[in-house]
Amino acid sequence: MNERAALSLVGGLVDHAGDDAAVVDGTVVTTDMLHDRTDFPAGTTRYTAGWRAVGASLSDVAATGAEATAAVAVYAAPEFTEPELRDFLRGATDVCELVGAEYVGGDLDTHQEFTVATTALGRTDDPVGRSGAEPGDRLCVTGTLGRSGAALRLFEAGETDRANELFRFEPRLAAGLALAEHATAMMDSSDGLARSCHQLAEASEAGLALDGDAVPVDGAVHEVAADEATVRELGWYFGEDFELVCTVPEHAVEDARADCPVRLSVVGEVTDGDDGGPAVSIDGEALPDRGFTHGE
Amino acid sequence: MNERAALSLVGGLVDHAGDDAAVVDGTVVTTDMLHDRTDFPAGTTRYTAGWRAVGASLSDVAATGAEATAAVAVYAAPEFTEPELRDFLRGATDVCELVGAEYVGGDLDTHQEFTVATTALGRTDDPVGRSGAEPGDRLCVTGTLGRSGAALRLFEAGETDRANELFRFEPRLAAGLALAEHATAMMDSSDGLARSCHQLAEASEAGLALDGDAVPVDGAVHEVAADEATVRELGWYFGEDFELVCTVPEHAVEDARADCPVRLSVVGEVTDGDDGGPAVSIDGEALPDRGFTHGE
Repeated sequence: MNERAALSLVGGLVDHAGDDAAVVDGTVVTTDMLHDRTDFPAGTTRYTAGWRAVGASLSDVAATGAEATAAVAVYAAPEFTEPELRDFLRGATDVCELVGAEYVGGDLDTHQEFTVATTALGRTDDPVGRSGAEPGDRLCVTGTLGRSGAALRLFEAGETDRANELFRFEPRLAAGLALAEHATAMMDSSDGLARSCHQLAEASEAGLALDGDAVPVDGAVHEVAADEATVRELGWYFGEDFELVCTVPEHAVEDARADCPVRLSVVGEVTDGDDGGPAVSIDGEALPDRGFTHGE
Repeated sequence: MNERAALSLVGGLVDHAGDDAAVVDGTVVTTDMLHDRTDFPAGTTRYTAGWRAVGASLSDVAATGAEATAAVAVYAAPEFTEPELRDFLRGATDVCELVGAEYVGGDLDTHQEFTVATTALGRTDDPVGRSGAEPGDRLCVTGTLGRSGAALRLFEAGETDRANELFRFEPRLAAGLALAEHATAMMDSSDGLARSCHQLAEASEAGLALDGDAVPVDGAVHEVAADEATVRELGWYFGEDFELVCTVPEHAVEDARADCPVRLSVVGEVTDGDDGGPAVSIDGEALPDRGFTHGE
């Protein structure tokens, strides 16, 4: 069973599982694990690792339209050195401060591979799910896509300073709070735009028609990509970017844009999904349901 | 730097770290990671693993005197099989149900070693810490000690059914809530009675004098231990038992006992710790500050 099939099994067995985060009595909770081999390319500093690991969980809180309150992490490594531990904690604390949450520690564990398990908490009385998209709604994306894909290329090229900088994203808590007022469905783009669109379409039992030219690909992608195919690969599929993907009724798009503290791009439209064409399309062609998934 | 030194560094750098759990605006949060090699002996079922991993975090919530509200887990394994995943989720859900909390899922991750990262949440307006023990208070322990040490011997002997049963402990949420009304300091015994006593004494800037005969060693320990030295090793030091260790003013001991839904043993007394003898003693001898610590 691959990770996706297994996740779907869990979704069927556990009431609150399946979305980016669970919400229990107004408290949002979400947890995640990142590993040296799969998530932290050679050259990733511990500061970036702390920032990014905690940021990934904060992003899941943002996807529900909640405010973030606190985060914890388990730092597991073969050995503990004071500079590494300090840097990690500084990164974890800084990303929390950036979004108004409190980093409240966690645990340490001796482990063969550097591994970080993070949990973030939030608070909302009215979480936005993935299932409310209605035909005619506009599909919107915050910020730009492809930063993490570009960072990976830069890590490979030894440009670690710039790569680390791109790897430290701002979790979209403020945007999520603002968009929660308008969005009919929302999630983050951690698995890539393409896969996020498929998940959102499936949960909402709708289709999505995207406009390729409207997808806000980050400038860094154009710096590292030699051709248009690579630009699309990193911008549309790679993921790990932690932007928000949401659907907003047409009449609310301008208000959503005005309220949202970061750039909000309209990249497509929700369709009824049963016109015989592909459920999720881009420029009229099927958008493949693939992205960055561990374990495949 | 070993795990203990590293934990102490984290305690100095992060405001809320150090105790069993952090408390932010009345929400208790605690996180932990368990591994195949160090925490799940050969023969541990996935049902037991789910129960125990989530139970360990619930125990940290209990140690603050809070009610448990929810738990999540990241299940990381080299591969996912439906029976294993189902069993794990059943164990995680059952232990949550036992203490009135909700298991709300989490995440899956492909990882070389079977690893579980758990987070439990709770709620309390008045958390009990480790630092309030006063000279004259009685040192109390819930339940019995040494079950996990005995279980490990049984796993080694191939008696896996009985070992799994002993490994599935009841997190002391109800006891923690009841004791919170009376206790001046509280923690769980996950690192063993001896180390817990040292941590509690240090945090409270006090001493502790224990009575060896009063320590409630579990019957299973006597079954597996060939001699008295082994009984002590498993009962006093081994840990991983997740009972509560607390201090209660002498006048409140009978009420605490009456309110506590499980056996509460008085095993010693808080001293002022500066009489020139060992800060933590048992039967008049120094109680070594050692136990079961990963990575030492």
